[in-house]
Amino acid sequence: MAGPNPAIAIDIGGTKMAAGLVEPGGRLIAAARTATPHALDAEQLWRTLDALISQVLESAGVGRTGALSGVGCGCGGPMEWPAGQVSPLNIPGWRSFPLRERLADRFNGLPVRLHNDAICMAAGEHWRGAGRGRRDMLGMVVSTGVGGGLVLDGRLINGATGNGGHIGHVVVDPDTGPPCECGGKGCLEAIARGPALANWAQQQGWRPGQREPTAKDVADDAARGHPVAIAAMRRAGRAIGIAIASATDLCDLEVVAIGGGLAQAGGLLFGPVTETVRIYARLDFARDVQVVPAGLGQDAGLIGAAALIFAGERYWSGG
Amino acid sequence: MAGPNPAIAIDIGGTKMAAGLVEPGGRLIAAARTATPHALDAEQLWRTLDALISQVLESAGVGRTGALSGVGCGCGGPMEWPAGQVSPLNIPGWRSFPLRERLADRFNGLPVRLHNDAICMAAGEHWRGAGRGRRDMLGMVVSTGVGGGLVLDGRLINGATGNGGHIGHVVVDPDTGPPCECGGKGCLEAIARGPALANWAQQQGWRPGQREPTAKDVADDAARGHPVAIAAMRRAGRAIGIAIASATDLCDLEVVAIGGGLAQAGGLLFGPVTETVRIYARLDFARDVQVVPAGLGQDAGLIGAAALIFAGERYWSGG
Repeated sequence: MAGPNPAIAIDIGGTKMAAGLVEPGGRLIAAARTATPHALDAEQLWRTLDALISQVLESAGVGRTGALSGVGCGCGGPMEWPAGQVSPLNIPGWRSFPLRERLADRFNGLPVRLHNDAICMAAGEHWRGAGRGRRDMLGMVVSTGVGGGLVLDGRLINGATGNGGHIGHVVVDPDTGPPCECGGKGCLEAIARGPALANWAQQQGWRPGQREPTAKDVADDAARGHPVAIAAMRRAGRAIGIAIASATDLCDLEVVAIGGGLAQAGGLLFGPVTETVRIYARLDFARDVQVVPAGLGQDAGLIGAAALIFAGERYWSGG
Repeated sequence: MAGPNPAIAIDIGGTKMAAGLVEPGGRLIAAARTATPHALDAEQLWRTLDALISQVLESAGVGRTGALSGVGCGCGGPMEWPAGQVSPLNIPGWRSFPLRERLADRFNGLPVRLHNDAICMAAGEHWRGAGRGRRDMLGMVVSTGVGGGLVLDGRLINGATGNGGHIGHVVVDPDTGPPCECGGKGCLEAIARGPALANWAQQQGWRPGQREPTAKDVADDAARGHPVAIAAMRRAGRAIGIAIASATDLCDLEVVAIGGGLAQAGGLLFGPVTETVRIYARLDFARDVQVVPAGLGQDAGLIGAAALIFAGERYWSGG
C-alpha cells in the first residue's frame, strides 16, 4: 500500500517529457520538463528520461528509492497495456519499448504503473481537478491529436486494450467530413486537432501561403476578430460539441473536462462547444452535462500518473 | 449471498410484460408473458404484474418466497435509479411508480434489484449470451426505440443516473438527419427505430398510403427484393454502424450484441451494419470489434434481470 512517501510521476508526450514528485494528497512538489528529443534512438531517449527523473529526485533531496511510494507514468499511445510496451506515434525512437519494465528495473521493488497519457490526464482531473467528487466524467485532450479518458461509476475505464475514452475517433461528420489518419472519415480528430484546424483555416484564405501556422495562431487571430479564424474555431468547437453530446448520451456523464493546447483559447472554443452540446444532448439525463476547462493545466498528466499509485482502487486495475 | 434457489426475473416493456424463474446458473426454468395493457391505471398494472408472477411461481411449484434468492427486474425507462421509481415512456399508467418498493413489499425480505430493460438485456447477453467471457461489450436493443447497456472492464456501467449505454441518441447525422423525439437531431434512434424506418420507406414510395406498416413489413419486403425496402434497411443499418464505430472507439469494445425486433432481419440489417463499422472503426484496437446478434433472443431481459441477483458483483452496484 502507498505510504506517506511521495510518488514519482512521469508524463511523456510527443512535445515534452516531464517528471515530478507528487505527495499522497496529490500536490506536485517538484517537477522538471524538457522538449521530447525526436532524433534520438531508444536508449538515448531512455537516458534522457532517466536524467530528468534524477534531476527531480535531487532537487527534492530524495536520494533513496525507499523514500518513494511508487512510480506512475503516462505515455503517448499506442501501447501494449498493461504490459507497458510503448510505441508513441510521435516518438519514432520507441517502438515496442518496454518502458514499464525498464522503470521497474530502475526503481527496483517499487510498484510501477503506466497508462495512456490522455487517460492519466483524465485520472488527474477526476482525482484532483475539474471532476473531483463526480462519478462519471470524460477528460479530453485537444492538442496535436484528440484523446481522452473515461471515469464511469467512479472508476477509470481501461477498455479491452487499455484505450478506453479515446474520443478522437467518434464520428461527427460521416458524410462530408475529411478523411482521418486512422483510415476512417469524419472523426472528431480529423476536424479538431490543431494542425487540421490551422489547415482548414488556410484553405479558407487565412494567412495564405504561410508555412506551418499553428492552431494557437488561429486562436490568436480569432481573438482579434479575424472572421475566417473565428469560423475555424467554431467549426472545431462544433465537432467537439457533437462528440461530447454522443459521449454524454452513451455514457451518462456528469462532467466533461477539456485540456490540451486548444483549451487555452477559452470562450472562443468553449462557446461553440457548449452551444452545440445544448443542441444535441437533449435527454433529461444528458442536458445538464457540464463542459469545463481542465482544472490542473499542464500538471494534470503528472498528477494523474501519481493517481495510479495513490488511488489505485479507482484508477488502476492493470496488475 | 445468493443461495441455490432460483430468482424471480421480471421484464417490463411497452409491448409485453414477462415474469420468469431463473436458476443460479442462468437457466430460465419457467416463464409467463402477457401483452402490456396500456389502458390500465397504476394499480391495475401492478395487479397484472402480480398475477403474472403468481402464475409463474405456481407453475413451478414455488409456494413460499423463502425458496427464492431474490427478485431482479428490468423495466422500460426513464426511471429514478436505483430508487426504482419508474415512468416508462410507453406505459402511461405508471408515472413515478415505486416499482422497486412495491416488489420489496410483495417479496418481504428478499433482495429486489431493478434496472433499465435495455441494461438488463445487455447484462443477460454478457452473463450468458453473446458477450460471455468478454470484458468490454455493448448490448443494443433495436425495436420501437433504440437502447442499450454497457459492460466495461467486466462490470455493468450505470452512469450518473442509471442510463449508461443509451446508444439511441448518439449523433450519426448531425447536419441532414431528422429531428429526434428527444429534441435533438440526427440521433441514431431518429433513423433506426422501427417506426422511423417504416416511415422513411413510405416517404420513398413503399406501400404508399397504407396505415401503420411496421419495420417487420419493411424487412419482409426487403427479403423479397423490394428496392425501397432494401434501401430503408441499408439506411438504418448504416446509422447503426456509425454509432457502433463511435462507441467502439470511445469505449474500446470487443463485441457488440444487437437484439430487439429489427435484429430478426438478419443479414439485411447486419450486412450494412458490419460494412459501415469496417469503414468508420479503423483504429488498431477497434477494427476487429465483433458485431453479432444477441444470443438469448427474447429471454435476454429475464436472464439479465436474474444476473442482477446472481452476479451482483458484476452487474449491480445500486445498493
